[in-house]
Amino acid sequence: MTAGEVTITDVGPRDGLQSQAKILTPEQRVELVEALVDAGVRQVEVGAFVSEKAVPAMAGSGAVLASLRASGHEAAYSVLVPNIRGYERAREAGAERVCLVLYGSEGMAQANVRMSRGQAEASATEILRRARADGVRVTSTIAVAFDCPYDGPVDPSGVCDLAGRMLDRGTDELSVADTIGAADPGRVRSLAETLVSQFGAERLSGHFHDTRAMGLANVYAALEAGIRRFDASIAGLGGCPFAPGASGNVATEDVVMMVEQMGYRTGIDQAALMHASDRARKLTGTAPGGRASAWLKRRYGQSSGPEAAS
Amino acid sequence: MTAGEVTITDVGPRDGLQSQAKILTPEQRVELVEALVDAGVRQVEVGAFVSEKAVPAMAGSGAVLASLRASGHEAAYSVLVPNIRGYERAREAGAERVCLVLYGSEGMAQANVRMSRGQAEASATEILRRARADGVRVTSTIAVAFDCPYDGPVDPSGVCDLAGRMLDRGTDELSVADTIGAADPGRVRSLAETLVSQFGAERLSGHFHDTRAMGLANVYAALEAGIRRFDASIAGLGGCPFAPGASGNVATEDVVMMVEQMGYRTGIDQAALMHASDRARKLTGTAPGGRASAWLKRRYGQSSGPEAAS
Repeated sequence: MTAGEVTITDVGPRDGLQSQAKILTPEQRVELVEALVDAGVRQVEVGAFVSEKAVPAMAGSGAVLASLRASGHEAAYSVLVPNIRGYERAREAGAERVCLVLYGSEGMAQANVRMSRGQAEASATEILRRARADGVRVTSTIAVAFDCPYDGPVDPSGVCDLAGRMLDRGTDELSVADTIGAADPGRVRSLAETLVSQFGAERLSGHFHDTRAMGLANVYAALEAGIRRFDASIAGLGGCPFAPGASGNVATEDVVMMVEQMGYRTGIDQAALMHASDRARKLTGTAPGGRASAWLKRRYGQSSGPEAAS
Repeated sequence: MTAGEVTITDVGPRDGLQSQAKILTPEQRVELVEALVDAGVRQVEVGAFVSEKAVPAMAGSGAVLASLRASGHEAAYSVLVPNIRGYERAREAGAERVCLVLYGSEGMAQANVRMSRGQAEASATEILRRARADGVRVTSTIAVAFDCPYDGPVDPSGVCDLAGRMLDRGTDELSVADTIGAADPGRVRSLAETLVSQFGAERLSGHFHDTRAMGLANVYAALEAGIRRFDASIAGLGGCPFAPGASGNVATEDVVMMVEQMGYRTGIDQAALMHASDRARKLTGTAPGGRASAWLKRRYGQSSGPEAAS
């Protein structure tokens, strides 16, 4: 059975490592990316041109990129750029693909980049125009597209409008992100169906976290709506370093396993991917993330109620 | 938003405890069941009338049932009966609901009860007839309805035919079980849609394991097909005691969280359910089950390949 192709972007070396307690050297980050590429992963987010003081885990992203470009490993390496200065630094380092971040909510935009949603969109649009002129490919990610930890539920129509504007402006890939892992498959399917009907599935991508154990359910819901591109993170890297197993990205190995079993082709070798996963765990010294129990324990606590009386 | 009702049967005190290394006393088992009922779970599988020598964890199921019936907790308690002798013992203990097991494959029938599939069906049918005459409610579970560890993929048409015969004979609930946690949501949806279109959803139920982290994706797929009844196990109990976290039933707390968030009503209080979950973990001394990483490690191993060379 062949159900078509699914394209995986591994965001572990960026979104994942950025949340780990242990900071890897550029050489270790290159080793992790190469393990992914050896397994057949064709798109990897390898770094970020952000403040090295604010995000020390991403310091040396230029060296990571240069090393990967020199190594001869064939893959599409992208880097996150938060502003035009980051874009310029990325270009100096030879980046040919960049990721821009937009926001589904005001609260998250303010918390993350101290801008309004509109300012973040204007900044991303400026970079997008420069990138198109430079022949650089662009992924635009809409963060907190479902729920915001500050503002609560996010209006789907605002997300659709923002997605439409970024697609109109020529973004190559538009990723809809459940940044805090709060979405359920009903809402994912509903938003994905609206987006696919308005814009087609070709450039759309889904980015899910496994905080509530619904990561794969959400991937399946998006698949059912026609989405064929997914972000994922090797070993589920991405949880908070102070709450192990709490809220990692959906694990690349889990997504690949599911979609391959369903008959989709990813081009990824699952045995080799498990070696990359093992490498990720050994390098970071962390257990794999995901599952809902940690989230539920935080949500409901265990300090009172029937438990105390029994 | 209200999307309708979902009925959960917690099978942890039977399917779950049966697989744990630690054997609970009947008093501890009653304590666990009562915690579930206190949380609003209305159907619980509380024991099995099997060989106490072969399955020591289920010894004393008569005492468990008697204690629960005397306690005044309002819930539907069912017990598994493997044969007519087990049915008679269950009736002597006052059972008003029994669970029968049928098999999607020959290999599993032989391994589990040393019968052919047809012999197991004949035995179940005899018990079903007795139960109907006695006014006892019956759940029929089709084990390995997707994949068998001995025979491989299971023919869906055989499962549908078997389900149809047991429904025709008057089973009150028909549970389709992914016993080894091998199904993916594509196959679940396909089989569930066929079953619902042929027999209606009213008496159908889904039973999934989280071995490959697809437990909730499979529940969602079945929901999409119209299924509104699910087995689940508190704390994800049910994994092999010698491979912690490997292959538990889908956790009741995960299923309730997802379907409630999607707008379904279960009648279960999630905070109280977390107390039951904590109780299950403390009584059994095990970590919660689920997630795919343990399965993937076993499937692909880590002893050779790129890892060794890197």
